[in-house]
Amino acid sequence: MSSNSLLGGAPRVVNIGLRGFADEIASQGADVVQVDWRPPAPARRAVLELLARLGAREAAIARANDEGLRRMQSANPVLVDVQPAGKVIAGLGERVLLHAGPPIGWERMCGPMRGAVAGAIVFEGWASDLAAAERLAASGGVTFHPNHYFDAVGPMTGITTRSMPVLVVENRAPGAGNRAYCMINEGLGKVMRFGANDEEVLARLAWLRDVFGPLLGAALRAAGGLELVPLVARGLAMGDEMHQRNVACSALTLRAMAPHLAQAAGDTETLSKCLAFIAGNEQFFLNIGMVMGKSIMDPVRGLEACSLVAAMCRNGTDFGVRVSGTGDAWFTAPVEMPQGLYFPGYSEADANPDMGDSAIMETIGLGAFAMASAPAVVGFVGAGRASDAVAFTRAMGQITLARNPRWTMPALDFQGVPAGIDLRRVVESGIQPAINTGIAHRRAGVGQVGAGVARAPLGCFDAALVAFARSLGIET
Amino acid sequence: MSSNSLLGGAPRVVNIGLRGFADEIASQGADVVQVDWRPPAPARRAVLELLARLGAREAAIARANDEGLRRMQSANPVLVDVQPAGKVIAGLGERVLLHAGPPIGWERMCGPMRGAVAGAIVFEGWASDLAAAERLAASGGVTFHPNHYFDAVGPMTGITTRSMPVLVVENRAPGAGNRAYCMINEGLGKVMRFGANDEEVLARLAWLRDVFGPLLGAALRAAGGLELVPLVARGLAMGDEMHQRNVACSALTLRAMAPHLAQAAGDTETLSKCLAFIAGNEQFFLNIGMVMGKSIMDPVRGLEACSLVAAMCRNGTDFGVRVSGTGDAWFTAPVEMPQGLYFPGYSEADANPDMGDSAIMETIGLGAFAMASAPAVVGFVGAGRASDAVAFTRAMGQITLARNPRWTMPALDFQGVPAGIDLRRVVESGIQPAINTGIAHRRAGVGQVGAGVARAPLGCFDAALVAFARSLGIET
Repeated sequence: MSSNSLLGGAPRVVNIGLRGFADEIASQGADVVQVDWRPPAPARRAVLELLARLGAREAAIARANDEGLRRMQSANPVLVDVQPAGKVIAGLGERVLLHAGPPIGWERMCGPMRGAVAGAIVFEGWASDLAAAERLAASGGVTFHPNHYFDAVGPMTGITTRSMPVLVVENRAPGAGNRAYCMINEGLGKVMRFGANDEEVLARLAWLRDVFGPLLGAALRAAGGLELVPLVARGLAMGDEMHQRNVACSALTLRAMAPHLAQAAGDTETLSKCLAFIAGNEQFFLNIGMVMGKSIMDPVRGLEACSLVAAMCRNGTDFGVRVSGTGDAWFTAPVEMPQGLYFPGYSEADANPDMGDSAIMETIGLGAFAMASAPAVVGFVGAGRASDAVAFTRAMGQITLARNPRWTMPALDFQGVPAGIDLRRVVESGIQPAINTGIAHRRAGVGQVGAGVARAPLGCFDAALVAFARSLGIET
Repeated sequence: MSSNSLLGGAPRVVNIGLRGFADEIASQGADVVQVDWRPPAPARRAVLELLARLGAREAAIARANDEGLRRMQSANPVLVDVQPAGKVIAGLGERVLLHAGPPIGWERMCGPMRGAVAGAIVFEGWASDLAAAERLAASGGVTFHPNHYFDAVGPMTGITTRSMPVLVVENRAPGAGNRAYCMINEGLGKVMRFGANDEEVLARLAWLRDVFGPLLGAALRAAGGLELVPLVARGLAMGDEMHQRNVACSALTLRAMAPHLAQAAGDTETLSKCLAFIAGNEQFFLNIGMVMGKSIMDPVRGLEACSLVAAMCRNGTDFGVRVSGTGDAWFTAPVEMPQGLYFPGYSEADANPDMGDSAIMETIGLGAFAMASAPAVVGFVGAGRASDAVAFTRAMGQITLARNPRWTMPALDFQGVPAGIDLRRVVESGIQPAINTGIAHRRAGVGQVGAGVARAPLGCFDAALVAFARSLGIET
């Protein structure tokens, strides 16, 4: 886990034109990674010089990173309950809305996030209709905070309010004990996380609140919780990368919980609907994976001299990064557009820029980082060849410090997923973390229109490096 | 699908020392298959000369094989019901036992098959205890027939009697409409298919007959059946090869059926037990896959001049092969020992030779033929490298006529599984079909002791080739 060799050579830049990158790998055999050196842009030279000066603190950084990696790899996240958000998330009260990504106010929010905000306000009864809800939000009648401030995460818009049922994950690692929270995945298409907010959307949320959430919570309590590290390990052997593809983990979750759901259910009719709800949504596990990720990464926050990325998230306007050694500070840059495939009738012209807290999956080494395990996913960004999938994972291996031995990939002969993004490696290589993502329509109320791969903007990491160096007494 | 080029060159023999084979592939890049030519053993020269003379009938054989492949690849097997075997299998009456493999009598039966026979006789009430059951069987008081004669298959011992509940698969392809039958998978360890027969085993069979079977049957009827070709396609993208590994397909079956099981159940307590039974057995799908395989291959039987292998099976004593063009004849040879891993406390000294109708999975291009999709399985026979898994699939591609476009393997860039074993290619290459299998204890009553890979004996195919040539008027 030491990275002594990292700063010895000249700065390297990997060719991140993915298609070409993958083609070159394929043509040169799977073990050859093409690395092109390019002179860095003038604006980045100062940051690269600062990076070189960080070499003087290498021992302290390596020690801190080892501790950060130890916390990541010893985490024991267990899905233990479902509860109303307002009951378990301290401070989530009346007229408070949590959202995905770094802090943002109504005036800078993108269309789908505004749509979700309006829907949630109506759902909570703080306004009688969507128009009144928008007026309330625009007039400062509600308060916005990032999910990440409240031990929570949310996919896409990520809007979380007090009466919504949230999945509760407890990190049972010795010395940890932290809990994290995330809404239940609503399904695909026209759902609030993609900005939809009509009666069908709100009725589904009410059913989750009144019927599904309480039953799943009771089943989880009766089962003594569901251990997530082994479940994800199985998912990696079954074609999931746990961000864009959760087919296996969703089915394995249903398998594990079905007997307990049956025991907790009052009647077979309600039970049948709840089983069908899980069975009908192959992304059901995504939100479980996200709250697992939050519970794994929160103990890694605030370690002095630790250069590990503790969180990546986006609100549809800004991309935000947090680094362990720089505490609660956000480093932001304008969010990029995902590259991907669109549902019939939609195109990039309809797409909202990248959005959601779900990049927590990549932060723990899953999603695009584990693409080698999910060749079906690269169908969204290329020819869908297994070699393309491997190329993603190998590239992300360039910016991470470890391989997670608990999460291995059969296609790479059971090598662990690349985990622990090192701020320094991102800055040095110029390789932008890849993030598998859904794509929302840019207008409020429409919903999902595609899926693809987004890139974390380099600007976040360059800014974070300056602050990280300063935290160690090294100024530009 | 034509094989005009097949007989043009000198006879080839592929090196089937698997370890070396895989190593060579790995060292030469994934697309290179090592083929060593060796002079055939004297005993095989006559068969190879006969094979060369078959070239005169190439056009007729190619036409027949195309029709056989068309039937395989257009099959539409649907799991439609569960019923008592005696109700749906014509002729399965009092004191009749169906068994795995080619025909065999009590005197030549191996230990575990005798154990299963005795258990089934007690289960049916034809004798009061196991000792009396053995006396009854030894004295000719019961009749034995192969499952394959009754549109049925059974794993390992494969014992099927009238009151056992059987899965019913209907092949809904236009012009087909045939049905096939197989017992419900009992779980792992001490179960009748591995020769166990104590009270626990018989009590489980009674529960399957009285509770689980009727409920699953009702749920399947309510659901309008479960289409199996798309289910298996998904399993291949999720690490299953559907013989030794059925984790994904078992979970997907549970997912598909759970809402219907809930609706069909009278109470949540019974339902919870039934859901837990499926959830607790990752090989639950195996028997569904087998009966699917039988329903796919039965329409391929009896096509004049068709050199496709229609069935491979074993009874623990003999290995049996049927070829389409030679009708109902069996070609048998002594069964070989599987190579594999043993459960703690057991070794090859405890092992029974290869057994079961489950080689129908390889006959349709799954199991060892689809190993590239299930690298986890090669842990049973080697270092468990993904390249080993690919080597199995590529080797089996040498003895098959087609790639099944409906069942593709992500690890091979979505190439179809090698399907349609050509008798001529097996004889010519000397490559023995590989079969993923469980390993039973050689004594009655013990159960499963390991898992590994077995090989179909070449003698079956040499004998079949002589008969096949004769069916086309070509004599030795």
